[in-house]
Amino acid sequence: MSFEGLEVGYDIPAKPGMAVSDIATPALVIDLDALEANLRKMGAMAAGMGVALRPHGKMHKSADVARLQHDIGGASGICCQKVSEAEAFIRAGITDVLVTNQVRGAKVDRLARLPLLGAKVGVCVDDLASVAELAEAAARHGTELRVLVEIECGGGRCGVVDPADVVTIAKAVIDAPGLTFDGIQAYHGSLQHVQTYADRLKGFEAQIATVQAAIKALTEAGIACPTVTGAGSGSFEFEGRSGIYTELQCGSYAFMDVDYGRIEAEGGGRLDGDWRNALFVAATIISKTRPGLAVGDAGLKAMTTESGLPTVFGRSDVHAAGVSDEHSNLSDPTDSLKIGDRLRLIPGHCDPTCNLHDWYVAIRGDTVEALWPVTARGKSF
Amino acid sequence: MSFEGLEVGYDIPAKPGMAVSDIATPALVIDLDALEANLRKMGAMAAGMGVALRPHGKMHKSADVARLQHDIGGASGICCQKVSEAEAFIRAGITDVLVTNQVRGAKVDRLARLPLLGAKVGVCVDDLASVAELAEAAARHGTELRVLVEIECGGGRCGVVDPADVVTIAKAVIDAPGLTFDGIQAYHGSLQHVQTYADRLKGFEAQIATVQAAIKALTEAGIACPTVTGAGSGSFEFEGRSGIYTELQCGSYAFMDVDYGRIEAEGGGRLDGDWRNALFVAATIISKTRPGLAVGDAGLKAMTTESGLPTVFGRSDVHAAGVSDEHSNLSDPTDSLKIGDRLRLIPGHCDPTCNLHDWYVAIRGDTVEALWPVTARGKSF
Repeated sequence: MSFEGLEVGYDIPAKPGMAVSDIATPALVIDLDALEANLRKMGAMAAGMGVALRPHGKMHKSADVARLQHDIGGASGICCQKVSEAEAFIRAGITDVLVTNQVRGAKVDRLARLPLLGAKVGVCVDDLASVAELAEAAARHGTELRVLVEIECGGGRCGVVDPADVVTIAKAVIDAPGLTFDGIQAYHGSLQHVQTYADRLKGFEAQIATVQAAIKALTEAGIACPTVTGAGSGSFEFEGRSGIYTELQCGSYAFMDVDYGRIEAEGGGRLDGDWRNALFVAATIISKTRPGLAVGDAGLKAMTTESGLPTVFGRSDVHAAGVSDEHSNLSDPTDSLKIGDRLRLIPGHCDPTCNLHDWYVAIRGDTVEALWPVTARGKSF
Repeated sequence: MSFEGLEVGYDIPAKPGMAVSDIATPALVIDLDALEANLRKMGAMAAGMGVALRPHGKMHKSADVARLQHDIGGASGICCQKVSEAEAFIRAGITDVLVTNQVRGAKVDRLARLPLLGAKVGVCVDDLASVAELAEAAARHGTELRVLVEIECGGGRCGVVDPADVVTIAKAVIDAPGLTFDGIQAYHGSLQHVQTYADRLKGFEAQIATVQAAIKALTEAGIACPTVTGAGSGSFEFEGRSGIYTELQCGSYAFMDVDYGRIEAEGGGRLDGDWRNALFVAATIISKTRPGLAVGDAGLKAMTTESGLPTVFGRSDVHAAGVSDEHSNLSDPTDSLKIGDRLRLIPGHCDPTCNLHDWYVAIRGDTVEALWPVTARGKSF
């Protein structure tokens, strides 16, 4: 990728080869050593559990990260949540994409065109009328869509509730030309963020009972269910070892964030003991006029706080006390911070934070190694 | 602006002339009638109070909205918070921009180059060393920068605390070639969101005492203070009537949001009684599998929630119960919502919500009248 004509500090936050200390802040930074370690670890874990890995691209929205997940991290494809995201990934060369969401209305036509670009494309349904919409669009374009029935398994959002409806919808998919029934989508989003390991395990027991009821209903109706897919970075070991799930959709393991870092791992440690923090918002101190306080240049337009404040990586002497639109207030009780000092902030929630930025600055040690576009940034349609 | 080659639902959410019901969702929608009414009202109020109006462009980040604020809303220039934002506005033709923030390090050089593009450029300082940095850069480029000393007047963020330091810094600005001392920046951010009118007034009394102390110190040192600028949409009538402030920097009045809508206006009503909701996130229902709940397609990547959940415009029968990365859960006790239904959500906090989107869809009645780029989206450097 050429960065000719792009200006550091306006178009892009850095150029490859620059010192990390010269990155224009605020910027979204990936520590490549940490990212690669996370990707390899998850690839090995999925392989060890005998399940496929289809990491969630909604988290990073980056074709470069997706390629690395494929090349070194054992991934067989990616997930995303929106048709425009799938388009962005496929246009950038990703060839196996599952939209883990309902696609309705005018977007169905866009989805059904995507296999024409050479990609294998999947989608979820939780409503009978959705099947006919997808089949019509697939027929219009002469394409094939892989379809999973999404079940409600505790997250309280989309998904079929009654196993009998799962069977009805699966049969409609099987009967529809252009659609292939591939199994069940069963993701429990809110379980990922349950604090204690014991409570997560308990939540998973209810989840797996729901999944088993759906599979039982399909089996009794003579319908094979090749794929059972779901799981996030807070629960994937449960799904992976269940003997029921065939595929994991974890996303945040690649980067980690403050919210996941708070969560208890098996054995009593924290999840950021198992996974390295690979994602940071680089910030610079721009004001220091009072004792105990320093003000940084990264605010709500550089990181989101709906899951809590950022933490300061590698520093125990300072911490984030508040974040406003363009500033972060840093509590600095020993007045160790001065104008121009740089900090690495771990964002509260990685997914919406990544979506704020146009570029990832991929660093190794003190050097910028690469600049990656946030391929699907803003693709929320 | 030509939209040739741009695809609705991928590159852009709509094209001018389309029906509002065909906008690809989620999308950022401006009701032009409401926006124009807000702009005219504020222009008249500022004129009535005898103060200048320099609306905050950090809120909308749009050169089109800025132009409308100038053309029909009495604005004499705009504010923004970042150098990259100022660059984006100036490249888009805005000719008078005040950066209401500290600019340090490598960004100073970029700032000092901006007058070469034909714009009048101002900036704030709250540290003596900042003055020398700005002067050096202005000399390097042969440009002139307008400089205001930012004072801490209650917001608890940037700004000089001691009036004696205000004088020291002002003198340094006056002595520096290439810099013009223009007065005081005194904005109290957190005051804007104080719920009751009486509490806001009380907060303002402390604020204005701080401002007066700074002016007194300057006057005693023989330094004229042509400009006293600040104020937001929750407090501007206090500043406007103070006889001390010469310029208002309100931003949110143009669009309104849930957070401002909660705030008590003078006389006991709410601020969204004084100002019309002009900004919406258009959303579509994509899943409805359980009684009492419907799921929309606008999540945290289409609107931010750090200031609270969105509300549903024009509907009292449904309300937002939760927002996750790509979904909003809508409480629908009478099960009135169905797949494909469209809602207009009023975002909790307008500034960071606007920054998520690439385009404003400007509508009048049922028709898309214009599509405006979010000129400075992502410009956080």
